Amino acid sequence: MASALAAVDRLTATGVQPARPLGLAVFPEEEGSRFGIACLGSRLLTGDISPERAAALTDPDGVTFAEAAARQGLDPHHIGPDRQALDRIGVFLELHVEQGRGLIDLHRPVAIGTSILGHGRWRLTVTGQGNHAGTTLMTDRQDPMVAAGAMITAVRDVAAAVPDARATVGRLQPVPGGTNVIASTVHIWLDARHPDDAVTADVVRAIHERARDIAAAEGCTVELVEESLSPTAHFDTALRDRLSGVLPEAPLLATGAGHDAGVLSGHLPTGMLFVLNPTGVSHSPSEHVEDLDAGAGTDALADALHDLLGDRT
Amino acid sequence: MASALAAVDRLTATGVQPARPLGLAVFPEEEGSRFGIACLGSRLLTGDISPERAAALTDPDGVTFAEAAARQGLDPHHIGPDRQALDRIGVFLELHVEQGRGLIDLHRPVAIGTSILGHGRWRLTVTGQGNHAGTTLMTDRQDPMVAAGAMITAVRDVAAAVPDARATVGRLQPVPGGTNVIASTVHIWLDARHPDDAVTADVVRAIHERARDIAAAEGCTVELVEESLSPTAHFDTALRDRLSGVLPEAPLLATGAGHDAGVLSGHLPTGMLFVLNPTGVSHSPSEHVEDLDAGAGTDALADALHDLLGDRT
Repeated sequence: MASALAAVDRLTATGVQPARPLGLAVFPEEEGSRFGIACLGSRLLTGDISPERAAALTDPDGVTFAEAAARQGLDPHHIGPDRQALDRIGVFLELHVEQGRGLIDLHRPVAIGTSILGHGRWRLTVTGQGNHAGTTLMTDRQDPMVAAGAMITAVRDVAAAVPDARATVGRLQPVPGGTNVIASTVHIWLDARHPDDAVTADVVRAIHERARDIAAAEGCTVELVEESLSPTAHFDTALRDRLSGVLPEAPLLATGAGHDAGVLSGHLPTGMLFVLNPTGVSHSPSEHVEDLDAGAGTDALADALHDLLGDRT
Repeated sequence: MASALAAVDRLTATGVQPARPLGLAVFPEEEGSRFGIACLGSRLLTGDISPERAAALTDPDGVTFAEAAARQGLDPHHIGPDRQALDRIGVFLELHVEQGRGLIDLHRPVAIGTSILGHGRWRLTVTGQGNHAGTTLMTDRQDPMVAAGAMITAVRDVAAAVPDARATVGRLQPVPGGTNVIASTVHIWLDARHPDDAVTADVVRAIHERARDIAAAEGCTVELVEESLSPTAHFDTALRDRLSGVLPEAPLLATGAGHDAGVLSGHLPTGMLFVLNPTGVSHSPSEHVEDLDAGAGTDALADALHDLLGDRT
């Protein structure tokens, strides 16, 4: 957002008078940290999630999205797609720090996005027999945490065996979650991705099968629910070529990270610019951009906007 | 508590005039659910935990025990042991639902406690490299959740190989805990118990060794911290014999569950009575007592109190 504002400042400073209007968009809940659905804001705008489903989503405290919206003074009845707004957007361009090592390997500060890896989120719910950690013999247990532990191993093993696949368990919640309590239920969230959506489906199917076997061996059961699924998104090729014309030094780069641009790419010409992250590490305090590269990103965005907006002077 | 009040009602109704005073004690935080230390109330009374350590304990929201006490109108400077109060107690008797299957197997409604299994709580902190679930190749990961999964399996395997040992992971917290984030750190709480305290120590040592190997294999590190440790507690044998005299039908029974009586047993004559739990399941909604057995427990407590308090009539 800061870079987008800086790019507008740069355009203004150079005396450009755009022939077309420019809008800046801020989409909430891109990470899906509160309501569990990544890119919730852009999905709502485009209708990629139904208003009914969005309104009923709950945060970890049990607050629904409709309630949270109402508390912020927004009428939840107006949640939903805005076709009119979408139709007014000619091109959507997103500038983002790169979240992988692509630009490090290419020794460049800025790249033009080509595609976003297909990805989805699933929830595995493992159910066993809640009991007392002190009074229950090891042989009498149906412990869903023991099953969950083996499932995390299985997730890694399945993904590691499929070239280009990624599968991750970064969130896990035992219920009730007491130190001296054998859990009755464990929720495991699975993030899985592959450039070929059919392979992603195969990976999830293989994990589900392994999870069923593991659960059965522990006297538990497991249920798998899809929480969200985004097919591999390809950015508009005409826009990409135009960006390459403006930024001839910038290489083309695919990304494994989800973005609002991926959701919008199904509805209007969409592109992305990536800026070098010198650590290649993301979703961690190590993720950052050096000032010099932030400047290069701002320049690239300003040049691209100049080209896309035209100039009446 | 309800049964203790009912027992007092029964004594009063029968016209008993106790020769000694009777007090009813309610100890907070027996499960340690909020501040992580089981039997915190009784440990504070006896000095089994230092006031400084107790005051600095934090709940999941980061509120310290001292702050929580102050919010309830209690001066945290007065937290600490009360030797005077302890010296005034001749005998401590606790009535509790049985949390195992002992009384089911013995076909009896009430038992007299003999001992409490030694137990402790440890926290394993596994540290890896937080990163993005989509952009990080499986081969580039140092994922502490994958290590944690294998550690849960190791905890079970180590305990299952040692007769009478129990080891449980019922609580686990990935940090930051996002679905699309490879965790940077995972906290695992370990509950371990055995009748022989030296064996408990061996079990924890073996788990720590396995955990170190697992962490190293995943490019992670692991640290183990003891949060609390209670040696096996034996109830007062003179009191036990006296209870057996009053309740000749009640069998003697050891328990694997921790109780405030276990803490107090190190400071004054202490005993326990257990009431049948028809499921044998505990720390679960299935844990309960049938009305008839609750009545038998109340009768047993009233008879025991009558004997211990004497009668001036």
